[in-house]
Amino acid sequence: MSVSLPKQFQVGGLHCGLKRNPNKQDVAIVLSERPAAAAGVYTTNLVFAAPVAIDRERTPGRSLRGVVINSGNANACTGQRGLEDARRMAAIAAEACGCQPEEMLVLSTGIIGEFLPMEKIDAGIRRVAETLGRDEEHMVAAARGMMTTDTFHKLISRRLDLPSGPVTLTGFCKGAAMIGPNMATMLGLVLTDANVPAEAAQAMLREITEETFNCISVEGHMSTNDTVLLLANGAASSEPLAGEELAAFQRELLLLCTELAKLIPLDGEGTDHVIEIQLSGCRDRAAARQIAKTIAESALVKTAVAGADPNWGRIVSAAGYAGVPFDPSGVDLHVNGHLLYQQGAPVAFDEATVSRSIKDNHDTIIDLRFSEGQTSLKFWTTDLTTEYVRLNADYHT
Amino acid sequence: MSVSLPKQFQVGGLHCGLKRNPNKQDVAIVLSERPAAAAGVYTTNLVFAAPVAIDRERTPGRSLRGVVINSGNANACTGQRGLEDARRMAAIAAEACGCQPEEMLVLSTGIIGEFLPMEKIDAGIRRVAETLGRDEEHMVAAARGMMTTDTFHKLISRRLDLPSGPVTLTGFCKGAAMIGPNMATMLGLVLTDANVPAEAAQAMLREITEETFNCISVEGHMSTNDTVLLLANGAASSEPLAGEELAAFQRELLLLCTELAKLIPLDGEGTDHVIEIQLSGCRDRAAARQIAKTIAESALVKTAVAGADPNWGRIVSAAGYAGVPFDPSGVDLHVNGHLLYQQGAPVAFDEATVSRSIKDNHDTIIDLRFSEGQTSLKFWTTDLTTEYVRLNADYHT
Repeated sequence: MSVSLPKQFQVGGLHCGLKRNPNKQDVAIVLSERPAAAAGVYTTNLVFAAPVAIDRERTPGRSLRGVVINSGNANACTGQRGLEDARRMAAIAAEACGCQPEEMLVLSTGIIGEFLPMEKIDAGIRRVAETLGRDEEHMVAAARGMMTTDTFHKLISRRLDLPSGPVTLTGFCKGAAMIGPNMATMLGLVLTDANVPAEAAQAMLREITEETFNCISVEGHMSTNDTVLLLANGAASSEPLAGEELAAFQRELLLLCTELAKLIPLDGEGTDHVIEIQLSGCRDRAAARQIAKTIAESALVKTAVAGADPNWGRIVSAAGYAGVPFDPSGVDLHVNGHLLYQQGAPVAFDEATVSRSIKDNHDTIIDLRFSEGQTSLKFWTTDLTTEYVRLNADYHT
Repeated sequence: MSVSLPKQFQVGGLHCGLKRNPNKQDVAIVLSERPAAAAGVYTTNLVFAAPVAIDRERTPGRSLRGVVINSGNANACTGQRGLEDARRMAAIAAEACGCQPEEMLVLSTGIIGEFLPMEKIDAGIRRVAETLGRDEEHMVAAARGMMTTDTFHKLISRRLDLPSGPVTLTGFCKGAAMIGPNMATMLGLVLTDANVPAEAAQAMLREITEETFNCISVEGHMSTNDTVLLLANGAASSEPLAGEELAAFQRELLLLCTELAKLIPLDGEGTDHVIEIQLSGCRDRAAARQIAKTIAESALVKTAVAGADPNWGRIVSAAGYAGVPFDPSGVDLHVNGHLLYQQGAPVAFDEATVSRSIKDNHDTIIDLRFSEGQTSLKFWTTDLTTEYVRLNADYHT
């Protein structure tokens, strides 16, 4: 899949010593050559990291210039010194890139509770600022610069032809189950040359995050650093997008974020299946997501999929304790297209056939239909394998 | 530990063919020779089993006579026929014991979504009604008659000397992680000869359940059948307990239920540690339990304990996403008595020492102190091991 960068953006990444392996990038910069509207959506964890505090102050914003990123250290649970270090990262990157400190955002991911080694970071930021570019290798280096336990870099671009001219959206993300040094994190970053006002960018990013990055779960442990950023520099057109063009851009952003979000459970370490939970007939989106999340985080559902066990009782009973009212006698359940439960009662099915279908497919589709309303929702998670536990239990701080 | 039965109760259990192994009891009866006050607390799962529906109708009640119990089949997700079968179980037991159908309660646990084999159950109930008694062997047979994947029967009795005379409390429970045929269940049953009015019995059982059976979790999957029952037949005294005597009884019931509840994570299959989460300085009990439950159900916390990893970041960040407001800078964390985190910041500690202490002890104590209020709470859960996943993934319906 070929990737390209929106106009007037430059990116880069390299190794500065936060990770032990010198072949692994651990610092990156994304720079817009012109002021960009910026939007951000953040973890709701009360224990949030220093870069989250900085970025919250600066988004939504009308004239940001870029993002400085490090991996290997989350700068979380680091108190006042951590806040100062995060501000310092932004200031060093701004100086190296020729902009103002408050025009830079910061993303960090990695170990919790350790101070950033600022000399290494300082030198790394200055070096990467000299290597920025627009080629695929620059994009890959930047994407790899935000990886922790990810086994592949996550980078997608899409092009949208609007009447006013083409726009490009390029998305980076990282996340691969929370099995990192202390905890991994979900980071997402979308760059576009579309001309989108900051308030509109913030509103659509929040809405789209609800349907994409907030509809994935590996084990439900919310990180201190989770962040999704959008930078729109308007290089593609002098006039702001509006009306149908703005709506078309929002649909394209939704597609991009959906693709990015699904890469995270796909990379869930030690997992054998991605589980796609399709809910329909729900009262509203909040109700649907609560049910989906409860099913996605049930260890019994996840182990059943790992074992290719078409165990509808675990799925239906997880929905039942989600805390959302529904009529159990109006529920149908299909797994991989096979009807297992209809109008609140089990139906006869060939267990061996359904089990084989789970075993033979990497994606398991749980399709649960309610009779409460018109809302549909998709949610993605992973199965729970002995390998996941081994990876998480064997790591020592 | 010697056990004894309260006055004017008889119990028994035997094998009637619901379980494959003929040495395993699968039907039991508990009978009071005189009318007893009865209280019940039930699963809040919207998908609840037929016996739960029956018992909800009948509790609190002033003149119940007993409980008929089966294991191996939960009679859940069985619709109208399941309801009729549960009523029929009560009626058969009542006929065999010489009381009225509506004087019997019903408990079922085992596989979901299959109809009860009523001929076997009918014959089993009639046979067990002829074998009731008061010896330890009768009590053990009844306790084993409610077991599914439990590796040991759970039976405790306590004696309380009141000014008006001694009373006895005997508790049965079952539960061993949700790894049963489709899903296991927590069942609790307390018998006493104390004279406790039905309304008082119901109020204290609800309050005590909040602090005991609702403060345990193995993987957070709420069953369709969870039930706690209390039968108080008043055989010990002609006058109802009141004032300080009633309060003393309630304290004793709390101790008994605490001991019973802790047996369930102790029997968590495939687990290596019981984790006791001690919270203090919380705003109120609901807030404390929400935080404790979130920590208890974090796969990252549970795998860290399995791996003897003193990973405070996982514990603190799980508290942070519990949805309960607190000041992160007022939080202290001790694990097995070692201070790891103080006033919202990590402190230096010897990781090898703490890791060894987790490895060498069956119980891991997570002691988390907030600065929000005066409420304390204890919560018990298990670690998450590869063996747990193997057991749950390898079972096939």
